[in-house]
Amino acid sequence: MKLLRFGEPGAEKPGLLDESGTIRDLSGVVADIGGAVLSDAGLDAIRRVDPAALPAVDPGVRLGPCVAGTGKFICIGLNYADHAAESGLDVPPEPVIFMKATSAICGPDDPIIIPRGSEKTDWEVELAVIIGTRAKYVSEADAMSYVAGYAVTNDVSERAFQIERAGQWTKGKSCDNYGQLGPWLVTRDAVADPQNLSMWLTVNGETMQNGSTCTMVYGVAHVVSYLSQFMSLHPGDVISTGTPPGVGLGMNPQRYLKAGDVVELGIEGLGQQRQDVISDPEG
Amino acid sequence: MKLLRFGEPGAEKPGLLDESGTIRDLSGVVADIGGAVLSDAGLDAIRRVDPAALPAVDPGVRLGPCVAGTGKFICIGLNYADHAAESGLDVPPEPVIFMKATSAICGPDDPIIIPRGSEKTDWEVELAVIIGTRAKYVSEADAMSYVAGYAVTNDVSERAFQIERAGQWTKGKSCDNYGQLGPWLVTRDAVADPQNLSMWLTVNGETMQNGSTCTMVYGVAHVVSYLSQFMSLHPGDVISTGTPPGVGLGMNPQRYLKAGDVVELGIEGLGQQRQDVISDPEG
Repeated sequence: MKLLRFGEPGAEKPGLLDESGTIRDLSGVVADIGGAVLSDAGLDAIRRVDPAALPAVDPGVRLGPCVAGTGKFICIGLNYADHAAESGLDVPPEPVIFMKATSAICGPDDPIIIPRGSEKTDWEVELAVIIGTRAKYVSEADAMSYVAGYAVTNDVSERAFQIERAGQWTKGKSCDNYGQLGPWLVTRDAVADPQNLSMWLTVNGETMQNGSTCTMVYGVAHVVSYLSQFMSLHPGDVISTGTPPGVGLGMNPQRYLKAGDVVELGIEGLGQQRQDVISDPEG
Repeated sequence: MKLLRFGEPGAEKPGLLDESGTIRDLSGVVADIGGAVLSDAGLDAIRRVDPAALPAVDPGVRLGPCVAGTGKFICIGLNYADHAAESGLDVPPEPVIFMKATSAICGPDDPIIIPRGSEKTDWEVELAVIIGTRAKYVSEADAMSYVAGYAVTNDVSERAFQIERAGQWTKGKSCDNYGQLGPWLVTRDAVADPQNLSMWLTVNGETMQNGSTCTMVYGVAHVVSYLSQFMSLHPGDVISTGTPPGVGLGMNPQRYLKAGDVVELGIEGLGQQRQDVISDPEG
């Protein structure tokens, strides 16, 4: 099942993508795609609805982030061995955690906004895991039952802010529109193996990243279990699991985004995103 | 004006502390202490209410975190020169930012929960700044107008998780009940000078921290302006501005909390907190 949110920023309605590719309005069924709706029981209730009985939505509608009420946007750093190598860093002995501001989250096709003073805005296609049920001290064996599903995310990163501006990566990870999420949340039953999904990213049509979640160092079940040892995870929390090689930071010479560029990215079975790169209209 | 939230966790109601020290129920006036209520106009609307006309609340009621709907819990690292020195680190050339999970936020007198496997749970009394109005690219001169007010926070920290468990401090800052916030939000008009407030923390009655915000390296106006260059700040966002000397990490030998300890802390004009230290009941 593919769940989504459509409409203007801050006023999105819940929806689903039916098997024919039509967006259907779920606002008569659930208030939003978040909270208890993300539990196994909540998702089962949506499964019992006949999509054909739901209003069809204009296919040109804006999509918002595919989940509401995200309390934490947690990222796993250096979680692909080849990406760690291109960054000049070792694979860590256990997962590296950092946070993106939840205010960075936006729709899958919303622009990448270059913040004031930025010269090193970079891209990172990532598999996002969306928590469905509160999880604390869960075992790796049980971890997947706390996952609602998966989505594509672009962990947009300002490398100077992240690395050159005094300690802690969050500074370069949290700018507005630095976290496109969607187009849809694909429920976990519809993803046969989250550790075997091809993923890609292009800039102006040129392939930059072309990898697979099969080279992820710490897999989804491990990461969910691991994080739950440090903090409780809640419905709607998003865990972005790291990026494969091919980011601008790792190129020689380094390459960064500029206004006018177009970024497209996707993950097998999870859909794709398209972003215009723009200067900050507030900037 | 002192605003607060009272009642059971997750079901708190808005309230205020009147000049006689009586808690008054604001739930007939505002839905919660959050969002637009934190704007200058929203706070002015509460000021026009006669506290004596509001229902009095049992003084023994539990207090929750003094603000609702916190999207970001941002901390400034090493922001007191003496604390940096006791940590063996230099004062950074610009503010160091890290995030605590918003799921760590709890009421001012809720227990400090020692997470499973923790041996280095430490304390940090801090001045928290609560954002009242969306702020982006604001100047230091204008920054204070975006602040709703101030509160006491305990930036509880697990030093092994923070420092010894592979990169990025957030891992040791985000455990459940690692962010007591309150007892009240004191609106900014009621704090003559946020850079001249004494602050203290005791463990089992023994003074551990005894400092003042006058030794803060990067002051409140600078920090709000600085953060707003990297990300938009939103009503209810909390910025914890760093801790003065006297944390357990800096002692010789180091000293950490254990179940049964009692931590008390406060800031001049902002009230005080009292926490029992307990093992994790989920643990």
